Amino acid sequence: MKVVKFGGSSLCSAEQIKKVADIIKSDAERRIAVVSAPGKRSANDTKVTDMLIALHVNHTTGLDTKDAISRIIDRYQSIINGLEIDAGLLDQFEQTLIHHLDTIKSRDRLLDALKSCGEDFNAQLISAYLNQIGVRAAYMSPKEAGILVTDEPSNAQLIESSYDKLNHLKESEHVLIIPGFYGASENDDIVTFPRGGSDITGAIVARGVEADLYENFTDVSFIYSAHPGLIEEPHAIREITYREMRELSYAGFGVFHDEALAPVFKKEIPVMIRNTNDPGIEGTKIVAEREFIPEMPVIGISCDEGFTSITMNKYLMNREIGFTRRLLQILEDHRLSYEHVPSGIDNLSVILRTRQFDGNSKLEDVIADINDKLEPDAVYVEDDLALVVIVGEGMKEHVGIATKTTTALSENDVNIRMINQGASEISMMFAVDIKDAHKALRAIYSNYFSEIKG
Amino acid sequence: MKVVKFGGSSLCSAEQIKKVADIIKSDAERRIAVVSAPGKRSANDTKVTDMLIALHVNHTTGLDTKDAISRIIDRYQSIINGLEIDAGLLDQFEQTLIHHLDTIKSRDRLLDALKSCGEDFNAQLISAYLNQIGVRAAYMSPKEAGILVTDEPSNAQLIESSYDKLNHLKESEHVLIIPGFYGASENDDIVTFPRGGSDITGAIVARGVEADLYENFTDVSFIYSAHPGLIEEPHAIREITYREMRELSYAGFGVFHDEALAPVFKKEIPVMIRNTNDPGIEGTKIVAEREFIPEMPVIGISCDEGFTSITMNKYLMNREIGFTRRLLQILEDHRLSYEHVPSGIDNLSVILRTRQFDGNSKLEDVIADINDKLEPDAVYVEDDLALVVIVGEGMKEHVGIATKTTTALSENDVNIRMINQGASEISMMFAVDIKDAHKALRAIYSNYFSEIKG
Repeated sequence: MKVVKFGGSSLCSAEQIKKVADIIKSDAERRIAVVSAPGKRSANDTKVTDMLIALHVNHTTGLDTKDAISRIIDRYQSIINGLEIDAGLLDQFEQTLIHHLDTIKSRDRLLDALKSCGEDFNAQLISAYLNQIGVRAAYMSPKEAGILVTDEPSNAQLIESSYDKLNHLKESEHVLIIPGFYGASENDDIVTFPRGGSDITGAIVARGVEADLYENFTDVSFIYSAHPGLIEEPHAIREITYREMRELSYAGFGVFHDEALAPVFKKEIPVMIRNTNDPGIEGTKIVAEREFIPEMPVIGISCDEGFTSITMNKYLMNREIGFTRRLLQILEDHRLSYEHVPSGIDNLSVILRTRQFDGNSKLEDVIADINDKLEPDAVYVEDDLALVVIVGEGMKEHVGIATKTTTALSENDVNIRMINQGASEISMMFAVDIKDAHKALRAIYSNYFSEIKG
Repeated sequence: MKVVKFGGSSLCSAEQIKKVADIIKSDAERRIAVVSAPGKRSANDTKVTDMLIALHVNHTTGLDTKDAISRIIDRYQSIINGLEIDAGLLDQFEQTLIHHLDTIKSRDRLLDALKSCGEDFNAQLISAYLNQIGVRAAYMSPKEAGILVTDEPSNAQLIESSYDKLNHLKESEHVLIIPGFYGASENDDIVTFPRGGSDITGAIVARGVEADLYENFTDVSFIYSAHPGLIEEPHAIREITYREMRELSYAGFGVFHDEALAPVFKKEIPVMIRNTNDPGIEGTKIVAEREFIPEMPVIGISCDEGFTSITMNKYLMNREIGFTRRLLQILEDHRLSYEHVPSGIDNLSVILRTRQFDGNSKLEDVIADINDKLEPDAVYVEDDLALVVIVGEGMKEHVGIATKTTTALSENDVNIRMINQGASEISMMFAVDIKDAHKALRAIYSNYFSEIKG
């Protein structure tokens, strides 16, 4: 069986939902659908989820909530009218919103409950429409389904036992329509996931029922070898491993949230990216092991900006037991996470996301701690670094990847600030100045992919 | 003023000691000489220090010590005869050895006391010879000089206050001859340094008296850009920074022990390598900052074998706060030191010296700990790795170093297993299979140095 997930853009209007219904109807293997809230219909449209957040703001700040509520209901009305299904649902929806506002006193829990309505209402009306067109479908809440989560508002973590509960969904005679993005806590509160939204629900359900395939329908057909905004017509990836997806998780590969892969990764359930607007195309397939080895050792190149490096020199550093460990402890104490730790004999660098210093952890405090606890001979900081990462499971079999890449960079006069290649040889990281980032990406890309475009 | 140090090969015979005396006499700036024990006169000769260790073994295992003692005295006799100085010293030497054997009950302390005699006796007779040829010289023991050390046998660490004590040596009207390799503990025991021998004593004295130059006389004139055993007529280095020396501290750069640089590094006292057998040549100078920027960005290439990498994969590893720090803690718990920690997003490698696993820390225990405490998806180990390190302060100013290097490797069909370049950009590390190590070194070397040989 297949678990299918549809994103907000696939469910933003009656017209889109009809496409979705056809997709479900067209394949008897598609037994469970996880749905998002209605997304934007156009660039300056408002997502239903954002309307619900606005409702929460108005309510908690004592403003009138009528308009906010009716705007939400209007949006669903236009969908329901377009689908020509029972308008009685609209009253239920409105009562649900009002009930939440009246009964939930905790600000945070109210926000989760309101946000969940976007997916929940959509699941109900999609189920109704499917039945109307002759598909035996049934709406099922995350609670009924068995998606049990921890109860920190907006930061739900799945409780492992949910997978067993979910397993019984296999037996259902109905096509189940489950709202994404949230679960039920033990004392029955609605709690939303921190990231990944419906992607994560889809992955959890796919794993629970041990699906043969998790189809993730969105508005693109493929994951591309590089950011389409930076590379014109980048190469479309047909097959990519979970690990490659992760290595590419920097900018340009946000097709879906990499944390959403964790549940299916564990059980090696393949994921297929599909385009609701072009369902005939088999999109990018994410797998544990490739079926075929591509002619290209490199599958993708990502490029992300906004990194800072802290470098320290200390004579005889590498004779000093625990130097690196103590440095990393300092970063942890400041709640900083780091990307790479390139080193020489007596020097060490850490690469971190610069934005982390906007918050509570001040760079100068970190430097002070480093000077104080590690007594280096020198510490220096470089901002405005970009990381270009080239990824491919095939790289380890190929001699000369580094050459091909570094040649591309030096020919384009890009100075490589740092290089990092781990033993897994699935990726190679190059730190460059931010001003060189796009030039670097284009240079490397054309070096690898130009030939195979034709 | 200059502090000069002479190694064992420079002091192995009367003939050599005459050269050393001429060197001291020829430059009025050479006010303090630190001397080693007589070294080998030929390939299968025995160092005096080894003779002293043999004496210790015989004594502590209850064997007759006469032969061992007379062999040592004979060796000094041949030197004394050659120098035509007062043979009365020989009795003193013999009495000293016997006195140590009779009075020192601690096995470890006896070993240190006996070992120290090699340098101590040499210093006495060299001082005598210098006076005979008209140099106002005086023997001075490390204790008189003020070299105060911690008292763990064979593991002396200098006590910082020694530097102030040493400072007064500047005022001496005599050329001072100080035996290297040991110091005096607070309760007056003789304790030897763990590593570096006379090099470290020379550096300590040079710093104490704030010398203008520390001349280190040995049997070579230069530090070379690569191991002469691997590269025919390697390029001779005229000037190298302390940091470059450290980065090159892998195989092939053992001219003198890099820990011996620490004392002079702190005060930026330049060190000059000089050849006792060719004192006219100004050898390699080790400095804090280069006077001239060489045409070559790369100053040296080292290559060392016997490294093991432990690589682990774990999905979402880089979201796991403290993963690397906990790994390094495990290594520390097993008393393992590591060279590099290259990483990907979800994989991490540590490179360690394989020989560390010969001792108490068993590789399988480390792996078990890693699996137990870090729960990676996979761990794998690779032995037989070699590290090729290219070093040069000038590298950061040059685009294309990585290219030049990786090209050399790929053209020679060397597969690069790992790459590591820290932000200091003073060195770049390439891990390769041991079988490719020498090929890799030669390829890189000729790529950089062939042009400038002519």
